[in-house]
Amino acid sequence: MPDCLDRLSAVRIVLVATSHPGNIGAAARAMHTMGLERLVLVAPRRFPDPEATALASGATAVLDDARVVASLDEALAGCALTVGFSARAREFAGRVLAVRAAAAEAIAHCAHGDIAFVFGTEMSGLSNEELARCSVVATIPTDPDYASLHLAAAVQVAAYELRQAASDGSVWRAPRFEPATFDEIEGLYAHAARTLTHMRFLAPQMPRRLLPRLRRLFARAALEKEEVSILRGILARIDQILDRQEHS
Amino acid sequence: MPDCLDRLSAVRIVLVATSHPGNIGAAARAMHTMGLERLVLVAPRRFPDPEATALASGATAVLDDARVVASLDEALAGCALTVGFSARAREFAGRVLAVRAAAAEAIAHCAHGDIAFVFGTEMSGLSNEELARCSVVATIPTDPDYASLHLAAAVQVAAYELRQAASDGSVWRAPRFEPATFDEIEGLYAHAARTLTHMRFLAPQMPRRLLPRLRRLFARAALEKEEVSILRGILARIDQILDRQEHS
Repeated sequence: MPDCLDRLSAVRIVLVATSHPGNIGAAARAMHTMGLERLVLVAPRRFPDPEATALASGATAVLDDARVVASLDEALAGCALTVGFSARAREFAGRVLAVRAAAAEAIAHCAHGDIAFVFGTEMSGLSNEELARCSVVATIPTDPDYASLHLAAAVQVAAYELRQAASDGSVWRAPRFEPATFDEIEGLYAHAARTLTHMRFLAPQMPRRLLPRLRRLFARAALEKEEVSILRGILARIDQILDRQEHS
Repeated sequence: MPDCLDRLSAVRIVLVATSHPGNIGAAARAMHTMGLERLVLVAPRRFPDPEATALASGATAVLDDARVVASLDEALAGCALTVGFSARAREFAGRVLAVRAAAAEAIAHCAHGDIAFVFGTEMSGLSNEELARCSVVATIPTDPDYASLHLAAAVQVAAYELRQAASDGSVWRAPRFEPATFDEIEGLYAHAARTLTHMRFLAPQMPRRLLPRLRRLFARAALEKEEVSILRGILARIDQILDRQEHS
């Protein structure tokens, strides 16, 4: 079913701060076996590199077309859904899905824009701050006593599940309204941080706690475009009231 | 659910005539991440070997316990179900299943005896004669133009599917904080309606539209107790600002 599998072209595989170029190559090969072609590298330690090319085997085209960017935000710009992978999902309080469910949700979102599947460093994965920028955290179920999937193995399983999700007549229903993009959601958080500070709700001693809680809440809800507008409308109205107060 | 996952102990991963010991090590690691421990090597070119140990990472116990045998028949002796992996499944006239269905069937057979998942050489996979000795042929769906999963990647996907099949019926639950009660949530909505009216965001002509949208958003998120407190805290702070304004 070529139409369904076309949806895989909306998927970006994002590797953050990969240490070993060989792992980038092996990940490219894993992607390519499943028909995923769009690789984004956030601040890789060494790239391009002959070791990456060697381990990519026949998938060097994926490396040739890879985008290298400086920050995770750049890699996620314009995405309709961002999925961060973590082996420490239990510590994360946001919306956590097993990779199979995450792949189904990703494929369902394809019509609305790009999807990012994000993988952290070989040693420590994604940081909590990086995970907080993702709308969903995904975990690959493993033996709890040895959860040591290497980077390319994790990409392989995720790519496999994406292909499975894209090729089955899955029962997942697309969301009814248009989802907000990453940029819209980050714009909302930035606005909320400004307004809450301005109204002195965000006291200097507690900003670290409150904003992550709000991020987590809204990530679970998977915000829609119109909802972001409503929430920003409320914030703008508060801004107005505060401004008037200051000038009275 | 330890009972279900115990079924994985019935699974043998059989590697036939593997050329590179590094691939044996990487396969052992892939197995171990999914809780598979029984490795059988049919006439490996080099084993044991330091390269195998290096690539096994923390999974050297799987290598230490590996059985080395001279023939495929020895490796399959006593099995209730034997599954041979092939990328050329279309050429095979027997019973062919995708890896997910093969894993489900394997786990269903566990009660009857051991299960073997069999993988051929890096270069050419299993021969037709070897596939003919298996009760089922399994294939990993890939991009037809680049079906080049390397050995450890194939073992990783198969082991992952076995674990999924064994733990099936388990719904992965996200960690949760204490959910807000119905009364707390209704209290929040009532407070929001008052404050939004007070700040003239809820204009008389649109109240029907806005509040249901907010309800829908927060219902999707399934609010927690502490989140209701945070949101009511923000509303209370707005109330304060509005009160001060009115009395100034």
